[in-house]
Amino acid sequence: MEPKRKLINSVDGCVDEALWGLVRASGGLSLLKGHRVVLRSDLDNLRGRVALLSGGGSGHEPAHGGYLGAGMLSAAVAGGVFASPPPASILAAILSLHAAGASGVLLIVKNYTGDRLNFGLAAEQARNRGVAVDVVIVAEDCAFDRPSKAGRRGLCGTIFIHKLAGALAEEGSSLGRIVSKVTEVLQGVGTLGVSLSPCSVPGSLPSFELPPGVMELGLGIHGEPGIKRSKVASADEVVKTMIDHMTNPVSHSHLPLKPGDSVVVCVNNLGALSCLEMAVVTRAAVMCLEGRGVVVARVMSGSFMTSLEMAGVSLSLMRADQETLRLFDAKTGAPAWPNLSSVCVSGRDYVTDPPAASGRPQDDAHSDGPLSPVMRAALERVCSTLLEKRDELNALDRAAGDGDCGDTHAQAARAIQEWLQHHAVPGCPGRLLSVLAGLVQDKMGGSSGALYSLFLTAAAGHVTEEQSNAAAWARAMHAGTQAMRRYGGADPGDRTMLDALCPAVDELMKLTTAPPGGQMSVLRAAVQKAASGAESTRDLTARAGRASYIAAERVTLPDPGAVAVASVLRAVLESLEGGGGGVM
Amino acid sequence: MEPKRKLINSVDGCVDEALWGLVRASGGLSLLKGHRVVLRSDLDNLRGRVALLSGGGSGHEPAHGGYLGAGMLSAAVAGGVFASPPPASILAAILSLHAAGASGVLLIVKNYTGDRLNFGLAAEQARNRGVAVDVVIVAEDCAFDRPSKAGRRGLCGTIFIHKLAGALAEEGSSLGRIVSKVTEVLQGVGTLGVSLSPCSVPGSLPSFELPPGVMELGLGIHGEPGIKRSKVASADEVVKTMIDHMTNPVSHSHLPLKPGDSVVVCVNNLGALSCLEMAVVTRAAVMCLEGRGVVVARVMSGSFMTSLEMAGVSLSLMRADQETLRLFDAKTGAPAWPNLSSVCVSGRDYVTDPPAASGRPQDDAHSDGPLSPVMRAALERVCSTLLEKRDELNALDRAAGDGDCGDTHAQAARAIQEWLQHHAVPGCPGRLLSVLAGLVQDKMGGSSGALYSLFLTAAAGHVTEEQSNAAAWARAMHAGTQAMRRYGGADPGDRTMLDALCPAVDELMKLTTAPPGGQMSVLRAAVQKAASGAESTRDLTARAGRASYIAAERVTLPDPGAVAVASVLRAVLESLEGGGGGVM
Repeated sequence: MEPKRKLINSVDGCVDEALWGLVRASGGLSLLKGHRVVLRSDLDNLRGRVALLSGGGSGHEPAHGGYLGAGMLSAAVAGGVFASPPPASILAAILSLHAAGASGVLLIVKNYTGDRLNFGLAAEQARNRGVAVDVVIVAEDCAFDRPSKAGRRGLCGTIFIHKLAGALAEEGSSLGRIVSKVTEVLQGVGTLGVSLSPCSVPGSLPSFELPPGVMELGLGIHGEPGIKRSKVASADEVVKTMIDHMTNPVSHSHLPLKPGDSVVVCVNNLGALSCLEMAVVTRAAVMCLEGRGVVVARVMSGSFMTSLEMAGVSLSLMRADQETLRLFDAKTGAPAWPNLSSVCVSGRDYVTDPPAASGRPQDDAHSDGPLSPVMRAALERVCSTLLEKRDELNALDRAAGDGDCGDTHAQAARAIQEWLQHHAVPGCPGRLLSVLAGLVQDKMGGSSGALYSLFLTAAAGHVTEEQSNAAAWARAMHAGTQAMRRYGGADPGDRTMLDALCPAVDELMKLTTAPPGGQMSVLRAAVQKAASGAESTRDLTARAGRASYIAAERVTLPDPGAVAVASVLRAVLESLEGGGGGVM
Repeated sequence: MEPKRKLINSVDGCVDEALWGLVRASGGLSLLKGHRVVLRSDLDNLRGRVALLSGGGSGHEPAHGGYLGAGMLSAAVAGGVFASPPPASILAAILSLHAAGASGVLLIVKNYTGDRLNFGLAAEQARNRGVAVDVVIVAEDCAFDRPSKAGRRGLCGTIFIHKLAGALAEEGSSLGRIVSKVTEVLQGVGTLGVSLSPCSVPGSLPSFELPPGVMELGLGIHGEPGIKRSKVASADEVVKTMIDHMTNPVSHSHLPLKPGDSVVVCVNNLGALSCLEMAVVTRAAVMCLEGRGVVVARVMSGSFMTSLEMAGVSLSLMRADQETLRLFDAKTGAPAWPNLSSVCVSGRDYVTDPPAASGRPQDDAHSDGPLSPVMRAALERVCSTLLEKRDELNALDRAAGDGDCGDTHAQAARAIQEWLQHHAVPGCPGRLLSVLAGLVQDKMGGSSGALYSLFLTAAAGHVTEEQSNAAAWARAMHAGTQAMRRYGGADPGDRTMLDALCPAVDELMKLTTAPPGGQMSVLRAAVQKAASGAESTRDLTARAGRASYIAAERVTLPDPGAVAVASVLRAVLESLEGGGGGVM
């Protein structure tokens, strides 16, 4: 088995290059020369304020470098992947903050032995040099039922502390006040993780084995073992199991939570969970907590403290009173802090009713008019023609497509026939075209349905009860064709229905200037152009639609869509010549 | 082969639940009843302004619902996973924005046939109802060398358009002005993707097969085929290949880019790439562009337009003049927009020098004093004792640890001996302890090195040239022990060196009140306590350190760390009794 191939340059260089990438991308960050230390570029703003430093092993990006900025951290120290940073770099970071004029430096450390020792050592060394230093250890893991000497691990809940301490430091609180506030808040912070996959340190094999379809509950952010393996359950069940475990009073490491408590929720992508799944888990977490009567005050959902490419998620909860929320909501310039709303999640109205007038045109009542019988006759002729042509169109389509062109047109025809049986044809032609657009969109389906519907909808606005002469119809046909071209993306010559429609419409546009009396001959010419246009598609290479995937030499029949359009136009002509001449 | 197990509740429900999750988590969003439509909750703010609507298939989260808010989109319509949304929902969204008083509605559509048709249809229907609607099609894919009828695909560059159009709409620009500005900007936008893995639609098999270690260049955001497969190269090479291809003038779809041009870069995680890799790729992109003389004005790096859990990345570039940057930098409330700095990336100084005074104490010059000979003698005795005890300590350690306790102590001893040969022992005891802390930290290694170093560092501040009497030494020992307990996390009784150290220090603390003359007897008593404390560890169960992983019944020897501490204290005593009594 080989280590997984990653998108890096080298195993040895990836940590430094990742820090470099973070700092280059963020206008407010800089690197401390000779160390894996990220500093705020605006160190001057720390003068007289408490500076905040965090850090730990790499592989948890955006932690912790992404949390630097006004209102959050002042510096972050990175170790190798999943390895604690050396005390010399931590000390160098502290001394940089001190030299910038910070009144004190708070170290925010996740509870891992290496981090405790190395940050502790640097803190003591800094104290010997006269720096006011204090250390807060974050140990909010809710995985283990029974106490262990190593204590609870520090996980994603750490970023709550970065935020609150950052807001306090920004507003000028003393080191003692910050330590006391975050120590109090930490009593109400808990985190639990679950993963569907392991992760692997660059150059190494995966941290553990997990069969497909199995998940591990309660694991750490370095792939350390969790507390239970089980089949991957539904998101709702997984979240319920997690929150049950986190709040179970029998467990030594539980987070006390009772109905009426207000919480901030952090749904943290451990690396490779899709954003779709993340959103489903976020919903489950909000529902589960609200189901217990807990007030969900804020939710953050995203990648905050990752474990390389682990496909998992952790939930962090923080009990939050008004003061805690005020600090949580305070502005920050940290690049990895999300753009959060300060509206309470629970109790908010989050469903909007559609405006009243958004129903379909075919549902509206309408009355017939002088043109109604003519239009009904034409439509009936179109429908019967399309039903007669069904097999012919299917056969043409089999040569280059999926052979259902006749079927889809027949579906549309039957839907229109059905509608005609039960409805009066509106006197307003535009209204009728809108009705037809709706029918075709719903019943014909596919790209053809959308294209016909587009044509009819765009045409509809141009023919009204007042304006329904031949010129208006020509303009309507033109507008419909333009919409089809614009949104469909095809042009004449691409072997589509446009090869019949466009020449016909060009001819019809003569109606806008033709003298009265010459109208039927224009229409006849247009129908002829449509027929010859359809026939001409035999020689064309498909460049749009499904037929574009077939090699050109294989297709020697005309395009079925173009043939259908020519047939529809001919049916309209025949209907008008057979007694409906009044339209023209 | 079975579909991949995902953290969702059901294949059918995941899209709706994900929208629900997004909306619940974000205080500024709401759902349009009966549709997969997300709206800004503050629709009132649209009155008299142009509203912006986007959307498309799901599976690209946070697109597009995450880009709603003041200064970005007003509404987003979601289809099923990788499927275009129905026109009825798009129309309902448009009509909701119109009803809220928007002066017009701009639809921002990615260039896929289904989206063009469905958004186009809804646009035409809305126009028929008197809504001022326009449509911008985003087609910025740089993958294909030769033009195709379907045109270039719409990819992550779409979010640039959301941002610029949003800023223009927020400041009251007209529909025409917005369309004209973003159409102009789109000429300078290009995107190319690469992936190391396929993705799979919930309930389905992966969209394509990709052998381990192979990557596909130029693929779409639905797992559509790309243009080339090759072995996964280094991040720098992959990025160079991408930017070469994107800007190659021979390619029909290239982005014209010349030295001196200013660009905004979006490094987009297609789903499952680790944040570490993302940062490495971000660095590569900045370096590659700057290497061509391009000015990198802004960089955004994160998950912006994903393809479910595809382990890949896309690069989007946007040529940007001052006006474009102004709009890009404008404030927005959209939850998925990152917290970006408005400082130009290129040309910024991003390396900070450490403060001058951060060197190691052992490197400083120091002068000897009256205590120097006493301390040198004691140290020499300690070192020779530890070297003599090497095998004994290793043997004790083999019973419960990795058998190197004697070796690590011997390493420290040799390092100190070496130092003593070449340096004067400083007259200030605190200075000496700091030097020893540095030596032990560098040369001893592991947890023991960190713990001794912590002890010495914390002790150092309590003994100075002025204050070096017995009481000061006792307080120093106490402070060192406390630091060891605080950061190491162990307590007496845990079978560690503290079991020797703590009883000895308790005894030594009598020196702070003891009458002059009784000091050597207190020291003798302390050394005796250390020895009996070390011996008592035979009966203790390890609860900290490596020995805590061994079953209690297997360990019947004393803890080697405690034995070492007792030996060190005895060596100091012997040295003082042998003629160095002046200290006490």
